[in-house]
Amino acid sequence: MKPAIKIGILTVSDRASAKVYEDVSGKYIISLLKEYLVTDWEAVYHVIPDEQELIENSLIRLADEENCCLIITTGGTGPAKRDVTPEATEAVCQKMLPGFGELMRKVSLEQVATAILSRQTAGIRNQTLMINLPGKPAAISTCIEAVFPAVPYCIDLINGPYLECNPQKIKVFRPAVS
Amino acid sequence: MKPAIKIGILTVSDRASAKVYEDVSGKYIISLLKEYLVTDWEAVYHVIPDEQELIENSLIRLADEENCCLIITTGGTGPAKRDVTPEATEAVCQKMLPGFGELMRKVSLEQVATAILSRQTAGIRNQTLMINLPGKPAAISTCIEAVFPAVPYCIDLINGPYLECNPQKIKVFRPAVS
Amino acid sequence: MKPAIKIGILTVSDRASAKVYEDVSGKYIISLLKEYLVTDWEAVYHVIPDEQELIENSLIRLADEENCCLIITTGGTGPAKRDVTPEATEAVCQKMLPGFGELMRKVSLEQVATAILSRQTAGIRNQTLMINLPGKPAAISTCIEAVFPAVPYCIDLINGPYLECNPQKIKVFRPAVS
Repeated sequence: MKPAIKIGILTVSDRASAKVYEDVSGKYIISLLKEYLVTDWEAVYHVIPDEQELIENSLIRLADEENCCLIITTGGTGPAKRDVTPEATEAVCQKMLPGFGELMRKVSLEQVATAILSRQTAGIRNQTLMINLPGKPAAISTCIEAVFPAVPYCIDLINGPYLECNPQKIKVFRPAVS
Repeated sequence: MKPAIKIGILTVSDRASAKVYEDVSGKYIISLLKEYLVTDWEAVYHVIPDEQELIENSLIRLADEENCCLIITTGGTGPAKRDVTPEATEAVCQKMLPGFGELMRKVSLEQVATAILSRQTAGIRNQTLMINLPGKPAAISTCIEAVFPAVPYCIDLINGPYLECNPQKIKVFRPAVS
Repeated sequence: MKPAIKIGILTVSDRASAKVYEDVSGKYIISLLKEYLVTDWEAVYHVIPDEQELIENSLIRLADEENCCLIITTGGTGPAKRDVTPEATEAVCQKMLPGFGELMRKVSLEQVATAILSRQTAGIRNQTLMINLPGKPAAISTCIEAVFPAVPYCIDLINGPYLECNPQKIKVFRPAVS
């Protein structure tokens, strides 16, 4: 039996982790991924506070122990003091992919002028792609729709599993093999 | 009596600081901010040469001693050897905001192909937002008009003073509180 | 006699350096530069594998010993484990120019959704401008056409030779001297 394909969903929020409110964002990402992906997969889902060391440890565990091919974070990407998700991501990645943050800010900027305050990024740790999404559901869908078309091919390139998507829901792109 | 809201204007230029020519750029930024801001504020204005240590010390003093909520630099963002303003800014900030540089280059690129040579950035030191603007007045107005709509909300998020603007002059954006 | 103007072309590819296939990309860049440049110049051309230390040493040699005013790399900018050209470039540069990577990804994104996976950048080491181009000829021409208009002026600013171009082939931009 092939091991299941795992995707980590990490909600970073002081208030959601303290149960001041329910985590809508992480669950929303899971529902979007269920729509996108035809391949069987399993969500590994955690809600943690905005503590850099905790975020780093969670990312490492999801990558190294759970063998997630993809980790999507939500929250902690703004300019406030407690917003440290991009720093934690950069600290545990070997390679950064600046194009993800650039594109997410570009598409968000068509919605709100404050999109330039978002510091979200993406990077690679061994065979795991990590992507920061913003905290609010409206911004999440704008951003994930923009970058997801490049995600399955990126995972191919880092020797991860082959992810197949529903073309009715998201058009992914894989260049012809050269 | 509430302490005055202070904004630092830092012109970084060997020639302006040596009085080879007058600093037009820093004064132009002050005049634009006077147009934009309805809230009372006070400019703390300095002209210094392109020396990284000096720029860093000036930024630190404007942030930590003068308690400026915002520091705007002009000059020193190009590729020449003496252009070190972005490096100085990054050295004194705890958080970088790459979206500012991206947007400023994007709007400048609609004017001149050499906009990609500009290395300007923005970042946060404690409760101070620091933004690099280019050195030339034409480029200054293109850049500040593009990013200023996000500035008051950014200062809110880092617990700075509430800046109110004249909507006839600049449309600032504050998302509805969630 | 004036020393010749030299431009380094560095193809970074495990397979091309092992002669599994011929290096088409580096040769294509040389042919494009021949079209663009009216000024006499000489190509210093190497093909090396995707080894970070080797890339760094080649860049340093092309800059410091060959006195290339410009080095253009091709290959090694993706997310795969062996793709380390941007890291090698950053390691040997004193100044980074993020606007090059931003613009190259932006124009490539109009062609393919996976353009955001490209990590290419540009930077300066002393009097040498280094630019990473992607590995595939189609992507090379999209990227070099976008950024080359700013290259001669950048080389002016770092005290390199004056490069004159054929305006029928590429429209370079030099701002009026202030």
